[in-house]
Amino acid sequence: MGRKITIKEVAAKAGLSATAVSQILNGKGARFSKKNIQKVLQAKEELHYVPNSAARNLSNKTDSTIGVLVPTISNPFFSEFLQLLENYSDAHTHILMVGLDGDRSQLYSAIEGLIGQNVDGLIIAVAIQENSQVTNLLKENRTPYIVLDQNSSKNSDFIASDDFHGGEIVAHYLYSLGHRRFSVVVPDKNAMTANLALRLQGFTETCRDLGIQTTQIQIVKTAFTKHGGQRAVPNILAFKPSAIFTLSDELAIGVLGGLFNAGEQVPRDYSLVGYDDTDYAEFTNPKLTTVRQPVELIAKYVLEMLKNRIADPQIDWQVMAVDVELIVRDSVREI
Amino acid sequence: MGRKITIKEVAAKAGLSATAVSQILNGKGARFSKKNIQKVLQAKEELHYVPNSAARNLSNKTDSTIGVLVPTISNPFFSEFLQLLENYSDAHTHILMVGLDGDRSQLYSAIEGLIGQNVDGLIIAVAIQENSQVTNLLKENRTPYIVLDQNSSKNSDFIASDDFHGGEIVAHYLYSLGHRRFSVVVPDKNAMTANLALRLQGFTETCRDLGIQTTQIQIVKTAFTKHGGQRAVPNILAFKPSAIFTLSDELAIGVLGGLFNAGEQVPRDYSLVGYDDTDYAEFTNPKLTTVRQPVELIAKYVLEMLKNRIADPQIDWQVMAVDVELIVRDSVREI
Repeated sequence: MGRKITIKEVAAKAGLSATAVSQILNGKGARFSKKNIQKVLQAKEELHYVPNSAARNLSNKTDSTIGVLVPTISNPFFSEFLQLLENYSDAHTHILMVGLDGDRSQLYSAIEGLIGQNVDGLIIAVAIQENSQVTNLLKENRTPYIVLDQNSSKNSDFIASDDFHGGEIVAHYLYSLGHRRFSVVVPDKNAMTANLALRLQGFTETCRDLGIQTTQIQIVKTAFTKHGGQRAVPNILAFKPSAIFTLSDELAIGVLGGLFNAGEQVPRDYSLVGYDDTDYAEFTNPKLTTVRQPVELIAKYVLEMLKNRIADPQIDWQVMAVDVELIVRDSVREI
Repeated sequence: MGRKITIKEVAAKAGLSATAVSQILNGKGARFSKKNIQKVLQAKEELHYVPNSAARNLSNKTDSTIGVLVPTISNPFFSEFLQLLENYSDAHTHILMVGLDGDRSQLYSAIEGLIGQNVDGLIIAVAIQENSQVTNLLKENRTPYIVLDQNSSKNSDFIASDDFHGGEIVAHYLYSLGHRRFSVVVPDKNAMTANLALRLQGFTETCRDLGIQTTQIQIVKTAFTKHGGQRAVPNILAFKPSAIFTLSDELAIGVLGGLFNAGEQVPRDYSLVGYDDTDYAEFTNPKLTTVRQPVELIAKYVLEMLKNRIADPQIDWQVMAVDVELIVRDSVREI
C-alpha cells in the first residue's frame, strides 16, 4: 500500500518539531521566526507534502466533502449536473459522487457509505420516501441534506423545477397546433418518481381541461432509457397518435430511432416533444422540441442551500422552485 | 453543522465502554459475551450509528477510497466509464470523482485534493506528462495510480485501447469503399492527447501506405465537443472530401448536425465515421459507423490492476492493451 509523505518527514527536513510544522502549516505559526516558517514551507514544497484533509475533517477542518447521489451518472441530465457541481464548487470542496445505475435497493447502503466517509452534507437526486429507513438514517446522524429532482418533500430542504407546469405547456402547445390524439411515454414502475408523475399529471389534466377525452391519450410504460424509448414504438404505431410526448430527452431519442427504423418520419408522420433539453436535443435529426430544465441554476442553488444548512442546521426548511420553458425546434408540426 | 451519532452514544445505550463497542464492531469482540455483543449491535441499529470510515481510513481500514480523474464527466464515454466503475466496485469501495471540464490547469490541485482525502489509489484518465510536477507529487506521496486513455507511459501502470489500430482500420475500410479524399476532425491543442494523436497517426500513415497523397487529407482542428464538430463543417465543405473521420462520436454528432443544417446528407453527400461507440451511436440518423472501445473491459481491468498495485507496490509495471473494432452502421457508403 502507498505511504504518503508524513508531517514527521517534513519536520525532519526543516529541523523543527512536528508540532511546530503543524502549527505553521495551519496558519498558527505567528510565534515562529520568518526563517523557520520559510524552512517549513520549503520542506513542504520539496517533499510534495499534502496535509491530510481526511484527518482534518475529523477536527478543525478547512476542506469539506459533499456527497451526491444520482440515479445514473451516464444519463446526460445528471452528468451535466455533476460537472456543473464540480465547476461551481471551490477548490476546498470535494464531491463524492455515487450513481445507483437504476438499482434503488442500493440506496440505503450508498447513503450509509457516504455518511461513513464523513461527508459534510448530501445532495440527493434519487427518490427517497419521507419517514423511511433512509430519512431516519440521515436524521439520526444529523447529516445535512437536500433533496431534488425526483422528490416531493415537506420535511427537508428541497429544490425542484416546476414539473407540473412542464407537462402543462406541452399540452397547450400541441393543442394549439391542432393535435388531439397523444401517446405519452413514461418510465415503468421502477423508475417512476414524484417529479415524473407531476409532468404526466400536468399534461393529462391540461388535456382534460381542453376537452380531450382520456381515450385519446395512450400512456406507454417502458424502461427510462434510449432503448426503452425505442421499444415503446410498436405500441405507439398501433395507437396512431398525431403527437408523442416523452418524459425525458433520452426517451425521445429512443422513440426517434424506433420511428426511423419503422420508416416513419418526424414531424411529417408523428410530432415529438421531449423533456430536459440536454445538450443532445439540438443534435438530433430533426432537432428536438423539448422542455428546458435550468440545470445550471439548479446546480448553483443546491450548493448554496446546502451551504446554508451546514452553516446553521436550525434555519427553516429552504424550498426553491425553478421554472421550465418550452424550447421549440423542428420535431413538431401543425396539423 | 451536522453531528453524527458517536461511538460514545452507542456505548451509553449498550451500557458498555466505547472501547468495548469499538472492538465488537470491528470484529475483535471474541472476549465479550453473546449478550453484550447483541446489546451493541442492537444499539447500533436503533441509533443508526455509522462507523466512521474516514477515521478508519487512517488506521486499520476496511473501506477503501479510489479517486478518479476524468477530463469531462458529461462526455458520454467518461460518464459510462464512471458508472461502470461504480457497478464493478464492491460496497466497501468509495469512488471520488473529479471532472476537470477541460481545464487542465486544475490538474495539480485536483490530485493534491484527492491525496489530501487519503485515497488508496488513483485512476487518471487525464493526460499527464512523465517526470512532471504531477508525477512527482504522486510518487513522493507514494500514491498508487494507474493512467489510462489519454496517456502513453513507461513509468506507471497503464491501460489503453489500441488507438493506432483504430485509425488504421478506419483508413482501410474507407479506402476499400472507394474513398480517396478525407477530412479528419481532431481536437485543438488544448484537448489533443497522446491517445488521440495515435488515432490520427494510424489513419494518416495507413493512407500514406495506401498511396494517398497528403494533399488529399485535410486536418480540421476544433473544440472536442459536439459544438466543436458542428463548427468544423464550413471548413469541411470547402475541402469537399468524400469521407469524414472524427476522433470521437461527440465530434461526429456535431458534424452530422452541421451537415444537416447545411442541407447535406449522410452518407449520400458525405460518409462519416466516429470513434468510441458511445450508446448514442446507434441513435443518430443515420446510425453512426464508428470504432468501438470496450469501455466495460477497460473499467474492469483498471480496477483490478489498481487493486494489485495497492496490495503490492513492488510488482512490475502492469501494462494492458485492449483491442478496438469497427462497428459498421449506416453513415458510410461505397463510391
